[in-house]
Amino acid sequence: MSDPIRIGIAGLGTVGGGVVKLIEASRNALAVRCGREIEIRAVSAKNKSKERGFDVSPYAWVDDPMALAGLDEIDLVVELIGGAEGPALDLVNQAIANGKHVVTANKALVAHHGPAIAKAAEEKGVTIAYEAAVAGGIPVVKALREGLIANDITRLYGILNGTCNYILSDMEQSGRAFADVLAEAQRLGYAEADPAFDIGGFDTAHKLTILACLAFGAAVKFEDVYVEGIEHVTAADIGFASELGYRVKLLGIASREADGVAARVHPCLVKREAPIAEVGGVMNGVTVEGAPVGVTVFEGPGAGEGPTASAVAADIADIARGLRQNVYLTPAKDLDTRPLAAFSGLTGTYYLRLTVIDRPGVIAAVSKIMGDAGVSIESLIQRGRKPEEPVAVVIQTHEVRESVMAEVIRDIGALDAVVEPPCLIRIEAV
Amino acid sequence: MSDPIRIGIAGLGTVGGGVVKLIEASRNALAVRCGREIEIRAVSAKNKSKERGFDVSPYAWVDDPMALAGLDEIDLVVELIGGAEGPALDLVNQAIANGKHVVTANKALVAHHGPAIAKAAEEKGVTIAYEAAVAGGIPVVKALREGLIANDITRLYGILNGTCNYILSDMEQSGRAFADVLAEAQRLGYAEADPAFDIGGFDTAHKLTILACLAFGAAVKFEDVYVEGIEHVTAADIGFASELGYRVKLLGIASREADGVAARVHPCLVKREAPIAEVGGVMNGVTVEGAPVGVTVFEGPGAGEGPTASAVAADIADIARGLRQNVYLTPAKDLDTRPLAAFSGLTGTYYLRLTVIDRPGVIAAVSKIMGDAGVSIESLIQRGRKPEEPVAVVIQTHEVRESVMAEVIRDIGALDAVVEPPCLIRIEAV
Repeated sequence: MSDPIRIGIAGLGTVGGGVVKLIEASRNALAVRCGREIEIRAVSAKNKSKERGFDVSPYAWVDDPMALAGLDEIDLVVELIGGAEGPALDLVNQAIANGKHVVTANKALVAHHGPAIAKAAEEKGVTIAYEAAVAGGIPVVKALREGLIANDITRLYGILNGTCNYILSDMEQSGRAFADVLAEAQRLGYAEADPAFDIGGFDTAHKLTILACLAFGAAVKFEDVYVEGIEHVTAADIGFASELGYRVKLLGIASREADGVAARVHPCLVKREAPIAEVGGVMNGVTVEGAPVGVTVFEGPGAGEGPTASAVAADIADIARGLRQNVYLTPAKDLDTRPLAAFSGLTGTYYLRLTVIDRPGVIAAVSKIMGDAGVSIESLIQRGRKPEEPVAVVIQTHEVRESVMAEVIRDIGALDAVVEPPCLIRIEAV
Repeated sequence: MSDPIRIGIAGLGTVGGGVVKLIEASRNALAVRCGREIEIRAVSAKNKSKERGFDVSPYAWVDDPMALAGLDEIDLVVELIGGAEGPALDLVNQAIANGKHVVTANKALVAHHGPAIAKAAEEKGVTIAYEAAVAGGIPVVKALREGLIANDITRLYGILNGTCNYILSDMEQSGRAFADVLAEAQRLGYAEADPAFDIGGFDTAHKLTILACLAFGAAVKFEDVYVEGIEHVTAADIGFASELGYRVKLLGIASREADGVAARVHPCLVKREAPIAEVGGVMNGVTVEGAPVGVTVFEGPGAGEGPTASAVAADIADIARGLRQNVYLTPAKDLDTRPLAAFSGLTGTYYLRLTVIDRPGVIAAVSKIMGDAGVSIESLIQRGRKPEEPVAVVIQTHEVRESVMAEVIRDIGALDAVVEPPCLIRIEAV
């Protein structure tokens, strides 16, 4: 058996604690499976004396996580501090500079600084592993970086945020309003006290940025990803979607387009029988489309102590067994640095819900705006009659360009008889 | 960049041809992604002059595949001959003996000889990769061998044969009989002219044997796996299952039981809303349950030129990048060689369809046999009344031991009023 791989762990919160407990509990199995022991040498967290449910005394303790990067006796630094900047970024950069491998679960860090980190790591000959940063329990980074290495990926899309998926799944099942379900999710611990980052789609966008870099060999900038959250999805939309054979899901979608890589996060109508539509509750799911493999789908828990610790431990084991791989499959120096394909130039089909005063001529006015813009209508539903009162009109379009649809929405919204802002949800062909 | 990895390919049928074409078409991308070139040095097949749609002249040609194992200029042998014995086995054994890595898509070979091959390979320090042997397009071997390395797997189950899944899916959608759908599947090329190996469950059992060895660190013998095919599943069963909220799927199931590893292949009723139930047509799907990860699900194409070539190329790329891993995760010398847990000792719940003469006292007689054996009935359906004619009675049981159920079936089948052999399908909790 080779010498042990010696690791230092920065951050002992839920995930860090889970990693320590898992590595200790499966010490023998991991040693046999890796051909060498995984030895925790040092740890760092804010408060040494905090009760954690496990004993930190076998490990060297450093108050400053940065010290881990400087310890000669450590081969690999596990960064579980979190945050895109500050101590996490400093630690990762210094660890690389000192020739140490890095495992991280930090999606914000990788989404914002991944390409720069990758370049430094590849120049230094160390490995960066980040399976836990995206859909923790699902080995999708490994699938893209290794299992599908011989494929040309054309599109991937995923449910990457458990909070949003829980809310949308519950709204569908219970028929309740967004705000009610969100409040319950907060009570149950499925949503943060400040949920804006999750429900606004930003967490999904972090993970999508990482997957897009990997799948398309591009240095995708998080800031360039189109992001729209689920706050505006109503129980009525979910009901109409269901009637039309769809479910509403918040998807992160990345694809190779004629003018570059596209990456966007927004609620989508997806066909109810598609695998991604069946991913319910807090589960995550990712569909990858490529040639020659075709379509593969991965589902599992996206967060939580166990799944995240499983992913971190697998990354450590990979490095222990000698895994060497480019951070984003394509060498960092060769990543495509062109801007993303413009969101406004993408085409798709749309679900549009209007709240209009029920009076003669309104549908004609709406149809004229769409017709003049060259948008053709696949279906139109107006339920019930309530003369001179607000009623819902739901329209499905045929294929149209995003920029054209934006103008159509603006013009329709300006009609006197349209009494609420139009609700637009994109229909994703899955 | 390191020296190229030099490979020899034995077998140039659909899969072998797909591998050659994929490696040539993605030559540059693979070189960049692996850090070294993959160079096809030599090939072997039965007929050199056959028209294959690609040029074999750049490669050394050997008529006897065994010669590939002896070529000094080859680092890795790709075995795509097929068959559990004969030239395929000889080639793999000789390649290992000569210190060459092996990539194979041969499920029969690995299912029958995997543990012995693994032992030889690990002693010799070479790697055996076989992603393409199980659910080709789905990197599930990689997930079990690497991505979930820190987990204790408790159960895995999968749809591992596209032919059976196509037939069962079509029977459900069309309501047609097994024989009709099979005939159509043969016309469409989804079923072999001699379909016994697929529909009898043996192909699924090959793949399950491999997954069970890997997931449970056991030298599972193919011969010990309980195998039952789908020939006896009728349109009526699929209809009743649907009414009860289930779909019928042929599953391979392996689990860790109190008295060892269990592995079995048989048709199952699975809850319609379970991810595995949504895997339709020729697709494959595998669900893995483990701690601490929880439940992860993998879906994709299980066979065909593209998915299989994708898997073979990924295995070659792994070895090119220096992947070293025990064949079954657990070192071959440490594999658990105890016999499988006895099938007759497993417990589960059952769907039972009886064809009985509609007359007073029959249900009482059936219920008495079940009650006397301690089998409790969860539901009983008798549709329609046709006095003194055969009618269907469908029973769902609560949890009961397999051996008890076998006796119950025998006794019920012996009743005068039961005019056809009882049809039993296991209900798998998913």
